[in-house]
Amino acid sequence: MNINTNFNKLPDYYLFTEINNRKKTFEQAHPDARLIKLGVGDVTLPLPRTIVDAMHQAVEELAHIETFRGYGLEQGSRFLRHAVIDNDYKPLGINLDIDEVFISDGAGSDLGNLSELFSTNNRVAVLDPVYPAYIDTNVIAGRAGEWINGRWSEIEYLPCTAENNFVPPLPKSKPDIIYLCFPNNPTGTTLSRSQLQDWVNFAIQNHSIIIFDSAYEIFIQDPDVPHSIYEIWGADQCAIEVRSYSKTAGFTSVRCGYTIVPKATGLNQMWQRRQCTKYNGTSYISQRGAQATYTPQGKAGIMHNINYYKHNASLFLDSLRSMGYQVYGGVNSPYLWLRTPDNLDSWTFFDLLLNKCQILCAPGVGFGKCGEGYVRLSAFASHETTQEAINRIKQM
Amino acid sequence: MNINTNFNKLPDYYLFTEINNRKKTFEQAHPDARLIKLGVGDVTLPLPRTIVDAMHQAVEELAHIETFRGYGLEQGSRFLRHAVIDNDYKPLGINLDIDEVFISDGAGSDLGNLSELFSTNNRVAVLDPVYPAYIDTNVIAGRAGEWINGRWSEIEYLPCTAENNFVPPLPKSKPDIIYLCFPNNPTGTTLSRSQLQDWVNFAIQNHSIIIFDSAYEIFIQDPDVPHSIYEIWGADQCAIEVRSYSKTAGFTSVRCGYTIVPKATGLNQMWQRRQCTKYNGTSYISQRGAQATYTPQGKAGIMHNINYYKHNASLFLDSLRSMGYQVYGGVNSPYLWLRTPDNLDSWTFFDLLLNKCQILCAPGVGFGKCGEGYVRLSAFASHETTQEAINRIKQM
Repeated sequence: MNINTNFNKLPDYYLFTEINNRKKTFEQAHPDARLIKLGVGDVTLPLPRTIVDAMHQAVEELAHIETFRGYGLEQGSRFLRHAVIDNDYKPLGINLDIDEVFISDGAGSDLGNLSELFSTNNRVAVLDPVYPAYIDTNVIAGRAGEWINGRWSEIEYLPCTAENNFVPPLPKSKPDIIYLCFPNNPTGTTLSRSQLQDWVNFAIQNHSIIIFDSAYEIFIQDPDVPHSIYEIWGADQCAIEVRSYSKTAGFTSVRCGYTIVPKATGLNQMWQRRQCTKYNGTSYISQRGAQATYTPQGKAGIMHNINYYKHNASLFLDSLRSMGYQVYGGVNSPYLWLRTPDNLDSWTFFDLLLNKCQILCAPGVGFGKCGEGYVRLSAFASHETTQEAINRIKQM
Repeated sequence: MNINTNFNKLPDYYLFTEINNRKKTFEQAHPDARLIKLGVGDVTLPLPRTIVDAMHQAVEELAHIETFRGYGLEQGSRFLRHAVIDNDYKPLGINLDIDEVFISDGAGSDLGNLSELFSTNNRVAVLDPVYPAYIDTNVIAGRAGEWINGRWSEIEYLPCTAENNFVPPLPKSKPDIIYLCFPNNPTGTTLSRSQLQDWVNFAIQNHSIIIFDSAYEIFIQDPDVPHSIYEIWGADQCAIEVRSYSKTAGFTSVRCGYTIVPKATGLNQMWQRRQCTKYNGTSYISQRGAQATYTPQGKAGIMHNINYYKHNASLFLDSLRSMGYQVYGGVNSPYLWLRTPDNLDSWTFFDLLLNKCQILCAPGVGFGKCGEGYVRLSAFASHETTQEAINRIKQM
């Protein structure tokens, strides 16, 4: 048997493993330190009661022969696909067919697996900094070329830095697959309608497909920031939108998300076939929980939590700026993208925050070369912990 | 953008879609018929109370800030991986490291995704008849060649028929990847220890990897049938074992399974990397449910259900044989593999059962050429329905 040798190309280095290693070393040296963890983007608030009750009910259904359920549809239950269309798209003026909605166990799986729809020789473009999984999945698929000077030879990187106001330039090559993530992870920045229209126009002209990750959509508050790429004219011909209940509803352990593959992309039937071959559907319990996020109490409950995180983000933004830091994101996103002071590199500032403030962040360079000189902070801690982190940074 | 053109090779025909179409046509013509559905292999009995309670508790934990959980490990929670080792492997004398166990959302995903570990030019061997997804996932990956006369040119098919007592011959080519499923779906037959040893020896000699699907392991009752391929000497060097709670514990809607990738295969780190890149872990609620299957009450509850299905299988086997049918399986499996009378082809007998008995089965030819002249019946209905089906067949 011959292995897929592309796996050998993946660097051993993995960002969150390295963060964890430095954390462990610190904790061993300082066993009494009260570490504030703002590195990983994971939610912390409990689920609203109405969502919990919906999952209790789903669990209980499985205990009785009259209500027991076996295999669901690979594409997801119709009740949830209807709820997605009625709540997430119709109010934006977007019409979707139920067959264009595919329920998943979270954005992570779909963002990885969508790559199977495309030829190996397709060219990929990503933003820099970027969520590493977009790249790694294409390394495994053999589209990345060679790892030279910290970049993949066959991938086009589109810089997003303070210098271009975090608006990526259109690609110079004609990439076949373009990964966009807005509100962006890690920078927390967004594109306006007209900026996103430029991307859709580019994709249509160049027959590219945009894989649009909008896991952080619920944090959008600026009226000029689109909530879905399908608000943009022509996007149904060239864009796949991937969403998740992880950040929206605190489902990082529950596992549920969905992906829109419009028929006009020509890829709908292929994705349907892929899912029916390699996926046996999403947990019924998780789908009932997701459905409950659309009830009036569910919506109120999740917005209560989102507003809690937004308050943290806003507190961070104002406080850090008043201390003289250059900070981005934090408005339509739970992430703050902090420029390191004195041109320190990301890891040096990471160590400084860890040792002087006992604060764990994510070093920007871990997301790509253009992340060098930045760190990412998350707004998912409690109000008290966020305030404590601010106080510690103030005294640094 | 160029698509993965391998998708175009997949035949439009899909077994269970065709079964469903014929069912619909029949129901429209006979709206009052009481149809007995023995076609799809889906469980019907409710979950044992102790498993339901464990999932209720997991759901409730997510409602409170003190017990809320976010992302779990991509490889699965340690509590469940320990339970798998202690209950499914240690009693068989098999030692596994916790890093060799990967929790999944079910066997379907892993059986599909494991193919990514291998080079595109690897050669595949499958049994015939065979569960269609093993083949389709390799068609998508580009390993199947062309569809000629109802078979893929680059896949080696190993016939399993009454003529060879459903013991597949060793491959003539040197396949790199061999899919085995025992207790077998669809035939319900098994291999003895010494028969499976022949396969492991073959794999070691030829540097092949065996992907061993043992989703129906819990139905094994013959003492000479191994419960895991790792009972066989050398299998840790050449076999990946894929298991599921779907049939074991009635989890077809809950979604949980696991895959063993021994370090001695050389593939463990690759699978770990694949999962960390393209999978964000299995639902915490499902994992707590799976853990509860290993408690004394959990084990008793699931064996109660399994014995219920076994009773059906045994009733079917005895009754059909006493009517003069040639029937296989049904002892270590919930499936019965019935030779059609009078050399009828599978679909003709399917239509006969549907029209004369209002019974829905799965036509054997849908699983491969060597399934021609057989149909599959499942033992997942109620005792009463099973008895009713037998009565109807008797009167046919």
